Amino acid sequence: MSASQRVPVAIVGANGYSGEELCSILARHPGVHVVAITSRQHAGKHAGSVLPRLTGVGDFSKLLFIEPAIETLLDCGAEVYFLALPHGLAAEFALPLWKAGKRIVDLSADFRLRDAARYSEFYGGAHPAPELLSEAVYGLPELHREEIRGAMVVGSAGCYPTSILLPLVPLLLQGLIIPEEIVVSSASGVSGAGRKAETALLFGECNESLRAYGLPKHRHLSEIEQELSLAAGKEVMITFTPHLAPMSRGIHSTIFVRPSAGVSPEAILPTLLAAYSEEPFVRVSESLPDTKHTTGTNFCDISVRIDCRTGRVILLSAEDNLVKGAAGQAVQNFNLMAGLPETTGLI
Amino acid sequence: MSASQRVPVAIVGANGYSGEELCSILARHPGVHVVAITSRQHAGKHAGSVLPRLTGVGDFSKLLFIEPAIETLLDCGAEVYFLALPHGLAAEFALPLWKAGKRIVDLSADFRLRDAARYSEFYGGAHPAPELLSEAVYGLPELHREEIRGAMVVGSAGCYPTSILLPLVPLLLQGLIIPEEIVVSSASGVSGAGRKAETALLFGECNESLRAYGLPKHRHLSEIEQELSLAAGKEVMITFTPHLAPMSRGIHSTIFVRPSAGVSPEAILPTLLAAYSEEPFVRVSESLPDTKHTTGTNFCDISVRIDCRTGRVILLSAEDNLVKGAAGQAVQNFNLMAGLPETTGLI
Amino acid sequence: MSASQRVPVAIVGANGYSGEELCSILARHPGVHVVAITSRQHAGKHAGSVLPRLTGVGDFSKLLFIEPAIETLLDCGAEVYFLALPHGLAAEFALPLWKAGKRIVDLSADFRLRDAARYSEFYGGAHPAPELLSEAVYGLPELHREEIRGAMVVGSAGCYPTSILLPLVPLLLQGLIIPEEIVVSSASGVSGAGRKAETALLFGECNESLRAYGLPKHRHLSEIEQELSLAAGKEVMITFTPHLAPMSRGIHSTIFVRPSAGVSPEAILPTLLAAYSEEPFVRVSESLPDTKHTTGTNFCDISVRIDCRTGRVILLSAEDNLVKGAAGQAVQNFNLMAGLPETTGLI
Amino acid sequence: MSASQRVPVAIVGANGYSGEELCSILARHPGVHVVAITSRQHAGKHAGSVLPRLTGVGDFSKLLFIEPAIETLLDCGAEVYFLALPHGLAAEFALPLWKAGKRIVDLSADFRLRDAARYSEFYGGAHPAPELLSEAVYGLPELHREEIRGAMVVGSAGCYPTSILLPLVPLLLQGLIIPEEIVVSSASGVSGAGRKAETALLFGECNESLRAYGLPKHRHLSEIEQELSLAAGKEVMITFTPHLAPMSRGIHSTIFVRPSAGVSPEAILPTLLAAYSEEPFVRVSESLPDTKHTTGTNFCDISVRIDCRTGRVILLSAEDNLVKGAAGQAVQNFNLMAGLPETTGLI
Repeated sequence: MSASQRVPVAIVGANGYSGEELCSILARHPGVHVVAITSRQHAGKHAGSVLPRLTGVGDFSKLLFIEPAIETLLDCGAEVYFLALPHGLAAEFALPLWKAGKRIVDLSADFRLRDAARYSEFYGGAHPAPELLSEAVYGLPELHREEIRGAMVVGSAGCYPTSILLPLVPLLLQGLIIPEEIVVSSASGVSGAGRKAETALLFGECNESLRAYGLPKHRHLSEIEQELSLAAGKEVMITFTPHLAPMSRGIHSTIFVRPSAGVSPEAILPTLLAAYSEEPFVRVSESLPDTKHTTGTNFCDISVRIDCRTGRVILLSAEDNLVKGAAGQAVQNFNLMAGLPETTGLI
Repeated sequence: MSASQRVPVAIVGANGYSGEELCSILARHPGVHVVAITSRQHAGKHAGSVLPRLTGVGDFSKLLFIEPAIETLLDCGAEVYFLALPHGLAAEFALPLWKAGKRIVDLSADFRLRDAARYSEFYGGAHPAPELLSEAVYGLPELHREEIRGAMVVGSAGCYPTSILLPLVPLLLQGLIIPEEIVVSSASGVSGAGRKAETALLFGECNESLRAYGLPKHRHLSEIEQELSLAAGKEVMITFTPHLAPMSRGIHSTIFVRPSAGVSPEAILPTLLAAYSEEPFVRVSESLPDTKHTTGTNFCDISVRIDCRTGRVILLSAEDNLVKGAAGQAVQNFNLMAGLPETTGLI
Repeated sequence: MSASQRVPVAIVGANGYSGEELCSILARHPGVHVVAITSRQHAGKHAGSVLPRLTGVGDFSKLLFIEPAIETLLDCGAEVYFLALPHGLAAEFALPLWKAGKRIVDLSADFRLRDAARYSEFYGGAHPAPELLSEAVYGLPELHREEIRGAMVVGSAGCYPTSILLPLVPLLLQGLIIPEEIVVSSASGVSGAGRKAETALLFGECNESLRAYGLPKHRHLSEIEQELSLAAGKEVMITFTPHLAPMSRGIHSTIFVRPSAGVSPEAILPTLLAAYSEEPFVRVSESLPDTKHTTGTNFCDISVRIDCRTGRVILLSAEDNLVKGAAGQAVQNFNLMAGLPETTGLI
Repeated sequence: MSASQRVPVAIVGANGYSGEELCSILARHPGVHVVAITSRQHAGKHAGSVLPRLTGVGDFSKLLFIEPAIETLLDCGAEVYFLALPHGLAAEFALPLWKAGKRIVDLSADFRLRDAARYSEFYGGAHPAPELLSEAVYGLPELHREEIRGAMVVGSAGCYPTSILLPLVPLLLQGLIIPEEIVVSSASGVSGAGRKAETALLFGECNESLRAYGLPKHRHLSEIEQELSLAAGKEVMITFTPHLAPMSRGIHSTIFVRPSAGVSPEAILPTLLAAYSEEPFVRVSESLPDTKHTTGTNFCDISVRIDCRTGRVILLSAEDNLVKGAAGQAVQNFNLMAGLPETTGLI
């Protein structure tokens, strides 16, 4: 692909963990030309002085951070805008960009929910751009590939949700499990909490520590239950407990389910194998997933164990929260939007 | 306590992680005189050359490892024997010691089950000393304190079981939760797997890794379900998924339960607070437990969250797998057996 | 020791890492009664709600944090005050306490230097209580034991300095090495940087990271060179490079030296063995030190290697930066001041 | 590059850490077709069942491990052979491959030394293929690029050596520093010790641990001093102390030097900047290197600090030991040998 054919893109909010990972992927993406990166805090600095990993890598050798001013962004020549901003703020940027006819891949929660009321319930306050919700597509390609191709705004799926939806949705679609019986215990690496100067995220607090948090109503439940309900054809509510584990990256989800009446637990694994046999980024196997095997990749690994003694089935999944759970997923969505092979820059 | 009043003890199998922790606690215990430590591999070496942490600490300044020969052990002057050996081997040592009238605190699984058939089911092979099972007491002081005091053989409770039984037993005793609905997701630090030269336990394999293992029928289920059934007054089976987390120590258990019909979820926390208000090593509070806060201590921290949306209640616990989950518990049992204050050497 | 004989102490600034470790040690110290703990941020809260490790441990079961107001402190009944405050602030508290006849163990750098000009050079600004410098004793018991016993103010030695001075001072005292040729490379766990909400100390920044910092003139050089010069009988300047390693605790120092003319490198180890043969907290051996073996202890481990090819000798040391490098050292100093056995509460 | 133009390669010994990293890089390399991977232990298994990271990635979706039999290897169609074997064994494979006219990139130490006697001194025993030493080129492209292009056998440079030679060689070439005064303190992540089932490499032994090892004559000194001597034009011997740090990947080297008489320490940084201004994988800057910024990349980051007080200059470098220190370097060498752009598959 020649440089002139590359899609010009901008990255708004490039210095958080997801933003940095996004830069790292796009810097090596053969179908992209990064024309602008923004950071309020670091405007005017070289990319490499803020994100040393990117020094000497592709476009980032020369890029400077700019202020995230909407006028500048509209003039920067980008066709697609990646927003790696806190929720709420993302929508404020998305609205004028969308009005100007730009396409948007948003990594925040702002465009993941179809219903503004649900947004308010989980995130507080009114949605900052409710008129965009009907335009936006939930950005989990394995579930909504076709809609993503043509979307102007994609709300790229969250990290926990990806690890939970991929194992569950095929089973709910076929009615194999009882929606009311779903219980999820997940653990995330600390990068999932973002690059925030908070005492609770210090090395000294997180190392040699395992703890639950965000109980009982973690924000990600909003998009998880939206998509589960869609698959089940009825309202689904689950119990979900996230934990913080002492590692930089990775999400592991352990999902307890019960087969529907008359369904053999032996049917679960074949259903998942069939559902994802053609998917480039979902690996269903008999081996128990390990976050380590997905680190730095866009894969989500899934396996199944049957607990004959109690009749429950245990679904297990692992992914890199910053790749398939954030930046890689955003690029996978972008590839679909841009008509590129879905795996471009991601394998 | 003068040196002459100290109880002479021997530690059989002192160079695994639990054994080392036991040495570390007993070296500072004012009511104990360690007269022998054994290690097949290290017989003849100074304690400190094998366990450098213990160099210059109490009795260990001078102790040499000896061969674990039963005759030598019988002659070493010990009154109480701590066995920190693999299951199966522990019983082989326990039998002659018991016949000689010695008291035993066993850290393996050999004396935790009342039923030899259950042992065979979960551990394979026939129990090596079934005649001792009726003598043995399950060594979780919060549940069996009085029996432990007079026991000749105590099968000190395991790490996962301690973290799961302490939150659940008071609730089952009062019928507050539905036994069939118990689902447990636990995570352990790597020391839980022992000091074994296996590839899967290398730093390079465990660091930055989170994975489930031992599914679906982990051996610890045998003692967990034995004690849960005892509390519930009927056979209980649970779903239990252990995970390996990238930390040296610590166990965190997340336990999903459903209140019994007519029971308010609000009743759970007060019940646990009341059950453990006088216990020196169980801390029930409103704060979410963190393994880090228990590291190096004999505490088990417990808290409760209510998921109003689904009606489930989530019990959370944390402990140091090598202390309250192994060596500290063994010493707590010993203190009871020796008529010492229960917290001696442990706070 | 009966409760009435215990020395009443106050801990000013109890919620940093060193302060917390100090609380943890003193809570178990049989010669101490903790009568007050302060924290500007947490005044009014229970000790255990801020420092959950301490819940249910000794005096800390009931203690509440109080404001660090000097009048309150003077009235709290303490005889000895531990100051675990940032440098500069410590001296502000020390001055009125000292004037009121109280004894002080300071964990900051404020009373480690004999010369106010040196303080200004390394820490910036004028020393806040220069009149106290002549009163203060450098709190490294292995070097200044007798002076510490009678001191009103002890400036407890720093973490890097302890790990560097203990191996070097006996060699300089005997003229065995060339002062100009000393080069030190140290690595510290992240707790050494304190519990500060800074991005650079986040888990995501420190995990899987090793980096030098504070080059070339780290503040600890001031006290290191003061004591080295004292031992050498002439001004000594060294090259010192600290690194941050991805662990919670521990300092490892690798010290490159050259034997003086006519001195055999073989003389180094015996000199160190002799120097510390009676010291309870310095372990000289042939084994290479490992920070892990000192974690949670007040030991400093030292060894020696000879590089015959280049004629250099390599001294290696390890300690727990929060214990022998901070809180344990402070308590060791306190024990001397209080006339207690030096190891009380520390083994 | 069309599939037919890709260079067919074989990877002998693909399941150690370096071998796995090599597979990971080559799986994504657009100029390579991996036709064979060997593993004595895993012959017959799918690549992905042994190295789950590689499941679904390029050629590795279908590859099976084969026995490392020389006949099979000669027939597998490969033109270039990557050897990721223990030293000694590598030469045994290299000899027949070379005789058959195959080109070899060896990741072991077998072809790094020009002198078989030096090999015997540092590695023990006679060199298994001394006749190949004159054919072999030291595989550090920044030093020997032109010779590598035409070489039949490249002994890819080691991890510590790369991090030490890149900062030092330009300075020695220009006579800016005193060779006798070089002192090096390095730290490596645990993967540097290989995927060996040894107790000392367990998570429980390495986590929260920092320790020196391999003192005073680490094997890597042989190649370090060979190349330093070449640059200095005279025999150079240095003092080198490696440490093991609790991280999976990364090497950090801190190098203490003294400027030659009449040389300003200020000249060092500009010399390094000039030396590497055109190098794609060496980043010299004013920022202190951090292993984290090089993880997963083929970069070596270098910086300089001047210690005016003592006249020493401190060179600091960081790299990923498995990439620029092993597999990435091997691929960089391969790219040169194959006439491909040097950065192919590496940025």
